[in-house]
Amino acid sequence: MKQFIQVEDVPDKDVESLVQEAIKLKKQPFQFDDLGKHKTLGLIFFNQSLRTRLSTQRAAQNLGMDVISMNMNSESWQLEFQDGTVMDGNTQEHVREAAAVISQYCDIIGIRTFASLTDRGKDYREDVLSKFMQFAKVPIVNLESAIRHPLQSLADLITIEEHKKIKRPKVVLSWAPHPRALPQAVANSFVEWVKNSDAELVVTHPEGYELADEFVQDVSVVTCQQEAFEGADFIYAKNWSAYQDYGKILLKDNNWTITEEKMNLTNQARFMHCLPVRRNMIVSDAVIDHENSLVLEQARNRIFAAQVVLKKILEWKN
Amino acid sequence: MKQFIQVEDVPDKDVESLVQEAIKLKKQPFQFDDLGKHKTLGLIFFNQSLRTRLSTQRAAQNLGMDVISMNMNSESWQLEFQDGTVMDGNTQEHVREAAAVISQYCDIIGIRTFASLTDRGKDYREDVLSKFMQFAKVPIVNLESAIRHPLQSLADLITIEEHKKIKRPKVVLSWAPHPRALPQAVANSFVEWVKNSDAELVVTHPEGYELADEFVQDVSVVTCQQEAFEGADFIYAKNWSAYQDYGKILLKDNNWTITEEKMNLTNQARFMHCLPVRRNMIVSDAVIDHENSLVLEQARNRIFAAQVVLKKILEWKN
Amino acid sequence: MKQFIQVEDVPDKDVESLVQEAIKLKKQPFQFDDLGKHKTLGLIFFNQSLRTRLSTQRAAQNLGMDVISMNMNSESWQLEFQDGTVMDGNTQEHVREAAAVISQYCDIIGIRTFASLTDRGKDYREDVLSKFMQFAKVPIVNLESAIRHPLQSLADLITIEEHKKIKRPKVVLSWAPHPRALPQAVANSFVEWVKNSDAELVVTHPEGYELADEFVQDVSVVTCQQEAFEGADFIYAKNWSAYQDYGKILLKDNNWTITEEKMNLTNQARFMHCLPVRRNMIVSDAVIDHENSLVLEQARNRIFAAQVVLKKILEWKN
Repeated sequence: MKQFIQVEDVPDKDVESLVQEAIKLKKQPFQFDDLGKHKTLGLIFFNQSLRTRLSTQRAAQNLGMDVISMNMNSESWQLEFQDGTVMDGNTQEHVREAAAVISQYCDIIGIRTFASLTDRGKDYREDVLSKFMQFAKVPIVNLESAIRHPLQSLADLITIEEHKKIKRPKVVLSWAPHPRALPQAVANSFVEWVKNSDAELVVTHPEGYELADEFVQDVSVVTCQQEAFEGADFIYAKNWSAYQDYGKILLKDNNWTITEEKMNLTNQARFMHCLPVRRNMIVSDAVIDHENSLVLEQARNRIFAAQVVLKKILEWKN
Repeated sequence: MKQFIQVEDVPDKDVESLVQEAIKLKKQPFQFDDLGKHKTLGLIFFNQSLRTRLSTQRAAQNLGMDVISMNMNSESWQLEFQDGTVMDGNTQEHVREAAAVISQYCDIIGIRTFASLTDRGKDYREDVLSKFMQFAKVPIVNLESAIRHPLQSLADLITIEEHKKIKRPKVVLSWAPHPRALPQAVANSFVEWVKNSDAELVVTHPEGYELADEFVQDVSVVTCQQEAFEGADFIYAKNWSAYQDYGKILLKDNNWTITEEKMNLTNQARFMHCLPVRRNMIVSDAVIDHENSLVLEQARNRIFAAQVVLKKILEWKN
Repeated sequence: MKQFIQVEDVPDKDVESLVQEAIKLKKQPFQFDDLGKHKTLGLIFFNQSLRTRLSTQRAAQNLGMDVISMNMNSESWQLEFQDGTVMDGNTQEHVREAAAVISQYCDIIGIRTFASLTDRGKDYREDVLSKFMQFAKVPIVNLESAIRHPLQSLADLITIEEHKKIKRPKVVLSWAPHPRALPQAVANSFVEWVKNSDAELVVTHPEGYELADEFVQDVSVVTCQQEAFEGADFIYAKNWSAYQDYGKILLKDNNWTITEEKMNLTNQARFMHCLPVRRNMIVSDAVIDHENSLVLEQARNRIFAAQVVLKKILEWKN
């Protein structure tokens, strides 16, 4: 694997094999603890992170890599992304230099960015990530970009694989309320990855919260949450702000919160969320604390999602 | 040792043996450099730290552990500690998830918090630390909590052991002035640990600065600093804010500063402080720069206090 | 080598040998990957950094060292540098304790500071760095101080050595415009190091931007940029604020920007800059993106500059 930006980067788009390899790594996490010897992973953060920050470090260390982390905004210089500008303002270094330089110090670079939620064109062009890809000379791993979060989706598929009772489970991605405007990244990626799995995918959200066509395409979408939940094996909750009326919050009330009552409509579905989660907004305490909740398993699988990706990239480099 | 929160966690409360084992490690710090192989220490900081941050990393590396540090406030999400709340405000993740998730990435977690100094009940319930203990699935090390600083106290006892001239030295914990309100944590722990050692403990402070009963109990307390200093072998200076009138500064003047004149009342006592120290507030330059000052030795011993604790926990896990 | 503060610390001031040793390390960066075993490098940052932060970590890891980084301002305590003060204000710890303590946890300490640009006396006394040198008990590496940036200069000399076509190339250090007041550190060091190399050095800057006498001494200085560029083999661009009218910006217009037109006056000179660079202020896009631009090579050589310095210090310690 020469980079890890989206599902297209999975060799042969064979998501199933990657999931199986991750599950094997989970059983013997230190089997390849020499593969990353003398290799450095650089983790560049443009915003906050808990799971990504910690799980990716752990994954790299399991493979024997060295890790260097940097908070771009507070520890380094303000970056310029526009070409041709006279840099007489607040930006201190152009991404052309920054990305190229970092890639001389690291063998693999992980980039964590966040959507602006104000400029849809810029976000959906993946302005930050794509500039790093363009100017860096080493493989890039997407640690959540403006519109995708593939390590999360891979961890989610690992978790579904471990917990599914039938070959083709019904997986429902349900919008849920949140007090702040959030990106569509997790939802976009989840759709993108589940489409490449065995599962049956249904997306449910209030009107106005349609995801971008490039992601949903022929996926089944219903605007009645109850209808979507019927017979579901997995409920994946997530908030996102509007794509059409870009970055806006159209609805804040709790009618879409995932409750026990709604979970009772399902086929004893497992509850999933990528975390961090707003309790009693996204999901009631009863549902997230229920034995059917997989949120901690998902978080744990972030290690093995990252580890299998780093392993594939290291093998490609060798 | 299955955790390290307070003196009660020392096996058989045998502080003396732990001190001796630390002194042995100090002589051969790399003797167990394979014990922590493939083990990760997570260090979670809710506030500033110099000695704890650096010495604990060094201790872990001496044992061959990997270390991941995270500044909770700036690098991760704002945590919610209340149960049952509708999380529609500023907190972004509940400690139930955060603590459980971190403990899936780390084999041991160190937590550094700080007293609110506004809500005594919350502080003395150890709200932050106890929630982490409740929801994490791995051993927790207290890197200073709202009301205790046990790694400091262990380092202090190591230092006293190395420098005492008699079996039962007289150790005086003296309050000293400081421009800001500070927690009682260092003083509480010092009392808690010295009580479990061979030393004779005397506490001296101005009226109004009484420590909590649960810590002082039957310890000798005098409000005349000069009287306390007579015949002392060790003077341990520390500021703390009031426990009764919680978090308040009752006195700011320098009558309680540790000076050469006062040190002359002692039995050529060694001077101790946990650092950082406000010079010429807590202690005069002449005293801290005197050859009888042990402040740097105390700081150095923080490595071996942390190392012996991590070693005992790793041994318990294996 | 017992420390690395300025060119005087190079053994026998033999810069050429150090450059050659760095070039050898670049070819086999892991040849000495056991030299730093059980040794910890502490990196203390008082301000932002990208290249220094990452390249020095990489260099240390190539030698098998452990690395601990700390952002002094945000992660630790505010330091007091004055002696004799009553510390009843905002500073929380004296550099006497901080430096001594850090040096007990680390085998080598790297310090990154920045000029005040308001108090020339303080800056040129190297107030921060020299206090750390005074109170730390282990070798100090200058990761850019108020008035010097020796790791940059060493990397620059490595780069010149790799790309020079004649034994004694003409190297021109040219002032260039910048919207903010910058230190003289890079320029000072560059002069100091190139003077100890084979190269012919010419400095060019507008009137009023004279560097301190202790650095320029008998170096050729011209105030006509075009004249300086004639026949040059290397153009090294850098902005600095005034030394005489200390810290002031005397000129902001772009007449001094390095352009293709000016590069055409040279002997097909290579373009150099230490980065971060303000594009189209310091240098036009066309020049920095030209195949004759060495800015990325310079940045890459920061690893081997740091690595050879750490290697020499480790050898001195052993």
